Amino acid sequence: MSTLAPIPDAEKDPRVKAVFDDICATRKTDFINNLWHALAFDPVLLESTWAEVKRIMATPSTLDPLTKELIYIAVSVANGCSYCVHSHTAAARAKGMTAAQHAELLSIIGLAAKTNQIANALQLPVDPAFDASASK
Amino acid sequence: MSTLAPIPDAEKDPRVKAVFDDICATRKTDFINNLWHALAFDPVLLESTWAEVKRIMATPSTLDPLTKELIYIAVSVANGCSYCVHSHTAAARAKGMTAAQHAELLSIIGLAAKTNQIANALQLPVDPAFDASASK
Amino acid sequence: MSTLAPIPDAEKDPRVKAVFDDICATRKTDFINNLWHALAFDPVLLESTWAEVKRIMATPSTLDPLTKELIYIAVSVANGCSYCVHSHTAAARAKGMTAAQHAELLSIIGLAAKTNQIANALQLPVDPAFDASASK
Amino acid sequence: MSTLAPIPDAEKDPRVKAVFDDICATRKTDFINNLWHALAFDPVLLESTWAEVKRIMATPSTLDPLTKELIYIAVSVANGCSYCVHSHTAAARAKGMTAAQHAELLSIIGLAAKTNQIANALQLPVDPAFDASASK
Amino acid sequence: MSTLAPIPDAEKDPRVKAVFDDICATRKTDFINNLWHALAFDPVLLESTWAEVKRIMATPSTLDPLTKELIYIAVSVANGCSYCVHSHTAAARAKGMTAAQHAELLSIIGLAAKTNQIANALQLPVDPAFDASASK
Amino acid sequence: MSTLAPIPDAEKDPRVKAVFDDICATRKTDFINNLWHALAFDPVLLESTWAEVKRIMATPSTLDPLTKELIYIAVSVANGCSYCVHSHTAAARAKGMTAAQHAELLSIIGLAAKTNQIANALQLPVDPAFDASASK
Repeated sequence: MSTLAPIPDAEKDPRVKAVFDDICATRKTDFINNLWHALAFDPVLLESTWAEVKRIMATPSTLDPLTKELIYIAVSVANGCSYCVHSHTAAARAKGMTAAQHAELLSIIGLAAKTNQIANALQLPVDPAFDASASK
Repeated sequence: MSTLAPIPDAEKDPRVKAVFDDICATRKTDFINNLWHALAFDPVLLESTWAEVKRIMATPSTLDPLTKELIYIAVSVANGCSYCVHSHTAAARAKGMTAAQHAELLSIIGLAAKTNQIANALQLPVDPAFDASASK
Repeated sequence: MSTLAPIPDAEKDPRVKAVFDDICATRKTDFINNLWHALAFDPVLLESTWAEVKRIMATPSTLDPLTKELIYIAVSVANGCSYCVHSHTAAARAKGMTAAQHAELLSIIGLAAKTNQIANALQLPVDPAFDASASK
Repeated sequence: MSTLAPIPDAEKDPRVKAVFDDICATRKTDFINNLWHALAFDPVLLESTWAEVKRIMATPSTLDPLTKELIYIAVSVANGCSYCVHSHTAAARAKGMTAAQHAELLSIIGLAAKTNQIANALQLPVDPAFDASASK
Repeated sequence: MSTLAPIPDAEKDPRVKAVFDDICATRKTDFINNLWHALAFDPVLLESTWAEVKRIMATPSTLDPLTKELIYIAVSVANGCSYCVHSHTAAARAKGMTAAQHAELLSIIGLAAKTNQIANALQLPVDPAFDASASK
Repeated sequence: MSTLAPIPDAEKDPRVKAVFDDICATRKTDFINNLWHALAFDPVLLESTWAEVKRIMATPSTLDPLTKELIYIAVSVANGCSYCVHSHTAAARAKGMTAAQHAELLSIIGLAAKTNQIANALQLPVDPAFDASASK
């Protein structure tokens, strides 16, 4: 169930087709997941979202591909996005996440959530030692 | 400003002192940050929280220490915990996070938050390919 | 699947019937959506919730009806309420939201979520120029 | 620092004065906290918010006053509202919350947050036994 | 649909079996809900999570069992965890939550969420009277 | 207090200077708020974030500029971003938001948050009539 009607023949729009082709070429697959099919209702949104995903997630950088997926999962869990939790857990597994790493990821997410809420309940002042903006 | 009055002479309680000593020994420092001072008002909560932090964050495991801090920061940002964002950003920096890695972390957090909310706005059905519980 | 058993013959309670009648009269429809059927288990909660929805959303005011629905969707997305995202997207469409406006709404929600989390990750101090409570 | 300029002489508006008087009479105090001063910029919002707080929080009901405050704190922590965490922790303490109960509240909030995020990370299906809407 | 494949014969692991047996003994039931079946993929995570749930939720303490469940539900709602809302609403009902108490819980959660967001929109300064850390 | 040290002489980097100049030209001001100063530590993040803000918020489109700011505030409140609530409330006021519209915005945000959490507490099934993806 979605808030959008399916887009018939979305790929007839050359801008949509170009993005879909680039997704397949970048990911070396012919599988286009539902997010991109849905965003095809607005080519600007589709193009800009894919460009950002490609630049940040699919380009070699200072963090390795699996670490990036673990961070993506963590944010998606905390933000309560079922779709993204599923798609990025699948992506992390495809990039080599083991069951032990998955369990450890869950442990860190759970621990962080717990201390986040305890610290918020206590309204703790930040230790001056943590202030990166202070002159030292 | 906090929701708790400061705990006078907390370390006179031997259970509190034992935790504080273990924090210093584990972290090779004599700095105890505000979270632990505050939790000293309830030794059981202090002991159990520190035991979990030590087991998950300060014990060698399948994820390296910096990756664990990056995940912790990501969750803390999404959950809106100012204290934890500060303390774990400082920890990540102490464990070698570079400015380029910090910028990349912010980029992934921002991108994930954006797609999380767009996917939630679209109420996308999860692709069957992402269902790890399906028999294959 | 719900956390409440269905309420049999809820409209036999005259307070429930009065609210249902007013919903239909106000909205010029005979469709009562699931939220109101569920709230019928407690007439006070049903009456007070509908009174507030009617006063804020269905009474002419300084914001036009479509703008109000767009704001409602935005909050519901950020709070992760699937039911409200669906019901208010349908309401916005009934009040004239075009596909282009829907795409723009998604773009703003996504951008705001992204900058929200980046600003929280940076723990930025608020610029004094933004302080409405300062004497000027 | 606030997003609203202070309201000069708010109590000259008889609707504002009536609410302030009722707050003092209901709470048996002459202290009006900042939320009500701020809401005075819009008498309708002030009146309706106070009426709801009074009806739900300050009227004898099926839950005792301290339990209601504990629930209020829990929600405010999870929603990240610093102001409400402070004001309702003070209210809970005024209604008799002990340090042991405060510690237990923090423990439950922390545990719930942890299992919430682990369950969301796992995308667990709800057990049919938990479905209150099923015919039995 | 889950992000984990089912664990075949999880109880053949004696650590898993010990936890499952303790859940049944503690709860006086032979029903093991999905959370525990899923966590069986990592015995350490299973053991530590159950130990914490047992210690906090199933041990006599300063808050009565029903109050603890109400707080758990409140946090789970605010954090958007469908699984936990279902499981803890069922638990609260098993511990005696009446329909009137359920309606009251919903009223408090709704009111808190509303004032949380209004207070955040106003960026209210905390009243000095609420500062528990101030010397008095 | 921030998690980043201030960037000395950020404008000496021509990419930073180009963005700052474009912000001033687009907004017809010489005021650069803290977000942009902070993002200057990574020119790619600065450029991409500003390009997106400019395209979505500062380009004529199907939604008027004030409506866009109201949506931005709503998301920022729900996500708990103090910085963004302040900056976009100031922006909305600069674009003509009246006190009455501000009060109405707060009322809608508060009402949506309340019904979001009540609907999540009830785990309501979405009415089939709201399913935009259904064939009709």
